[in-house]
Amino acid sequence: MDKPVAVVVGVGAERGLGAAVCRRFAAGGHHVLVAGRTQAKIAQVVRTIEAAGGTAEAIVTDATREADVVALFDRAAAPGTGLAPVDAVISNAGNNRHIPFLEVEAGLFEDFWRVGCFSGFLVGREAARRMVPLGRGTVIFTGASASLRGKAGFAQFSAAKAGLRMIAQSMAREFGPAGIHVAHVVVDGGIEGDRLLSRNPGRAEQAGPDGLLGIEPIAETYWQIHCQPRSAWTQEVDLRPYKETF
Amino acid sequence: MDKPVAVVVGVGAERGLGAAVCRRFAAGGHHVLVAGRTQAKIAQVVRTIEAAGGTAEAIVTDATREADVVALFDRAAAPGTGLAPVDAVISNAGNNRHIPFLEVEAGLFEDFWRVGCFSGFLVGREAARRMVPLGRGTVIFTGASASLRGKAGFAQFSAAKAGLRMIAQSMAREFGPAGIHVAHVVVDGGIEGDRLLSRNPGRAEQAGPDGLLGIEPIAETYWQIHCQPRSAWTQEVDLRPYKETF
Amino acid sequence: MDKPVAVVVGVGAERGLGAAVCRRFAAGGHHVLVAGRTQAKIAQVVRTIEAAGGTAEAIVTDATREADVVALFDRAAAPGTGLAPVDAVISNAGNNRHIPFLEVEAGLFEDFWRVGCFSGFLVGREAARRMVPLGRGTVIFTGASASLRGKAGFAQFSAAKAGLRMIAQSMAREFGPAGIHVAHVVVDGGIEGDRLLSRNPGRAEQAGPDGLLGIEPIAETYWQIHCQPRSAWTQEVDLRPYKETF
Amino acid sequence: MDKPVAVVVGVGAERGLGAAVCRRFAAGGHHVLVAGRTQAKIAQVVRTIEAAGGTAEAIVTDATREADVVALFDRAAAPGTGLAPVDAVISNAGNNRHIPFLEVEAGLFEDFWRVGCFSGFLVGREAARRMVPLGRGTVIFTGASASLRGKAGFAQFSAAKAGLRMIAQSMAREFGPAGIHVAHVVVDGGIEGDRLLSRNPGRAEQAGPDGLLGIEPIAETYWQIHCQPRSAWTQEVDLRPYKETF
Repeated sequence: MDKPVAVVVGVGAERGLGAAVCRRFAAGGHHVLVAGRTQAKIAQVVRTIEAAGGTAEAIVTDATREADVVALFDRAAAPGTGLAPVDAVISNAGNNRHIPFLEVEAGLFEDFWRVGCFSGFLVGREAARRMVPLGRGTVIFTGASASLRGKAGFAQFSAAKAGLRMIAQSMAREFGPAGIHVAHVVVDGGIEGDRLLSRNPGRAEQAGPDGLLGIEPIAETYWQIHCQPRSAWTQEVDLRPYKETF
Repeated sequence: MDKPVAVVVGVGAERGLGAAVCRRFAAGGHHVLVAGRTQAKIAQVVRTIEAAGGTAEAIVTDATREADVVALFDRAAAPGTGLAPVDAVISNAGNNRHIPFLEVEAGLFEDFWRVGCFSGFLVGREAARRMVPLGRGTVIFTGASASLRGKAGFAQFSAAKAGLRMIAQSMAREFGPAGIHVAHVVVDGGIEGDRLLSRNPGRAEQAGPDGLLGIEPIAETYWQIHCQPRSAWTQEVDLRPYKETF
Repeated sequence: MDKPVAVVVGVGAERGLGAAVCRRFAAGGHHVLVAGRTQAKIAQVVRTIEAAGGTAEAIVTDATREADVVALFDRAAAPGTGLAPVDAVISNAGNNRHIPFLEVEAGLFEDFWRVGCFSGFLVGREAARRMVPLGRGTVIFTGASASLRGKAGFAQFSAAKAGLRMIAQSMAREFGPAGIHVAHVVVDGGIEGDRLLSRNPGRAEQAGPDGLLGIEPIAETYWQIHCQPRSAWTQEVDLRPYKETF
Repeated sequence: MDKPVAVVVGVGAERGLGAAVCRRFAAGGHHVLVAGRTQAKIAQVVRTIEAAGGTAEAIVTDATREADVVALFDRAAAPGTGLAPVDAVISNAGNNRHIPFLEVEAGLFEDFWRVGCFSGFLVGREAARRMVPLGRGTVIFTGASASLRGKAGFAQFSAAKAGLRMIAQSMAREFGPAGIHVAHVVVDGGIEGDRLLSRNPGRAEQAGPDGLLGIEPIAETYWQIHCQPRSAWTQEVDLRPYKETF
């Protein structure tokens, strides 16, 4: 098999950004390694891709554990699989929650960092280790408006996401000239996905038509970034619903 | 004719960003109003579009003159032309030059502002006047790294471009909720076009393969921004060659 | 007289930032050239300084007119006055008003630029022309939150202020190594001065105690910036009331 | 004793920023809790303060350990000590080193975060817990240019420092209206202190006179921030030597 390979880390429910990115890259002709914590969810993402004529495989991965991330990339490059080298990597793990600062426990602050920043470091480094020798490849990080500014109740999230953005910038500056395209997408606003809507079922209606970020349009932007020729690369782009205050 | 209409302001040589944007929107099915200062140049852009099966018309416009810009948009909406309302507007006028600060004449500082900022105000306002009643449309401004930071020798350019960026941001915040998509593209690096290469013919070779920004890839990004559904709009995106230091 | 000389441009009512800066530098031992458009107002500022034991002179100046600004600096350096070279220059001209974007007339957009940006260019350039040969001096520009971001209804103000900020940055990068300290102060929030309170007398009460920016504390920060040794210079600092949302 | 109390976390050698901040606050009339990892170093800082007529005490603290930080603040507020409530807190722990991204070990990336970000979270939270009930106090975080942008070889440092900045911003937005002044100082450039000079003895000479950041001038800025009235608070300020490229 000589399909290019995409590794998407941080995939949950089908109706989520990670899954949409998987589908977009599969539709674009990639074999997709679907990495997430929950076997049932990522298996479902694979089935949908296969039903649409694409190829993918589910690999249970805790992106905050170095061994898991290394194993994921080793799998991508394992001899005998016939897989082509990794062509695109998307680091999408994340979570969010409003917590008054005085109530943020040290362990919780650390957990936010592990999921929102450390996982991106691991994924970015393993991606770069494979891509630098080849002199090509794309690495895209999912950011948020909190990557750019801190707000009351979001220190734990913002500290992680701003750190992730600096990983992306540092990598872009170090590896861009080596042919690796590193980009950071500032996703600003609620995403019309399971995570948000399962907690707040009325949110989509509240926001009105197109008031939440559509997962397919976001995924399309990831795909476009990947397709950019190296004479005009995007390092950072923001995305928000037309009504979003910013 | 019910083709959507695109107005591109600041079009010069065929091998330039403005012309490439015209071609991209024409290829995408727009009737393009090609606005620039030099009749011969914009007529050539129109011919190329027509040769490729598209439609366009050349309208000599000095984007720093209010009457010209108003006339351009009046033309776009003139009854009897059968033109559809303006769907996309690109504000692309600009220039650049390194000048030691102590040598910047007041008139030159003003000229940079007229070309780099005031023209964008005029184009943005006329665009918004036509689009707001319809509740849709795209306005894209061409920015630069100087839009974000001032450097020695570039005060005159940076002051204009940073002002232009604020017009884009202010418009985005005011008109986004009304359905108008306003975006700002940070073009960071030398553009592989006539303006740069006519002054410095060896520059492309110096920069190496893909070391300058390709005009077609930039134009493609403008087109993608225009095509975004309103549930995931980009307000700002940067573009630079893979080797560019930033 | 060998007092160091400070030139403060954009001085209006006694209860205003410009006047407070004049008083602070006079108290710090400077001879202050008080430059503003209205003779009566700046003469009053001079009287207050003299009553407190300082020295100052009023020079009617329209900071948007090159001849006025050049004349102001020529006065500062005129032989026979016995004045020391200009040591500190503060560029403080400005205005602000909310205007829906579609109602911004071209002439008004230009006026905002002349007051908010072009005047700063003139003042900055004339200051640098005098300071660079000496290898020392301080130039401080008054900025605003609008220098950093555009908001609905403030395109005309933001475009001017962002341009001014780029002048400050460009000058800092060009002249810092030559010993000229160029700084930009982001004044974020309503200033407890005549301009705001004459238009909206209830505003101070509305804002509550310390809810508006005090003019003396802002002026103190300008003074501290001027006093910094060159081993630790500030290029940008923000100031806002404790309650201000940002 | 009713002296106001300052807690300075991240104090090392006498010729270092932390120690200079301790001395400045002691000179300003504060009783200073000098917190650092090395007893001998912080004891020396205390002796110098006492020799100059001030008061201070050394408290060995590993700022990355929650128990240590809580104990430090408990000490500050312990009944029987007669100490006034904590009035000013400075979070100054940090380190830096260039490391090619591919060589950054996961443990090292975490260590940078613990020192550069997590310690700031702990210090900031404990400070806020004591200050919020009183409705006053100052918390100052030491940042770096890496807080704002990522560079090749500095992902581990930049990710930590950008996170710290978001803690500062989030705290400022949450606690400013409650009367707590939270500020972030962007220290841009080499500091003329033991840490830098012990590794690179020739660096000061290389940089030339005033080419490195003086520790006393930086400390003076911290003190000035602390003294600002709440009608004009600084949230962020940068500091760099006059020659520093930025």
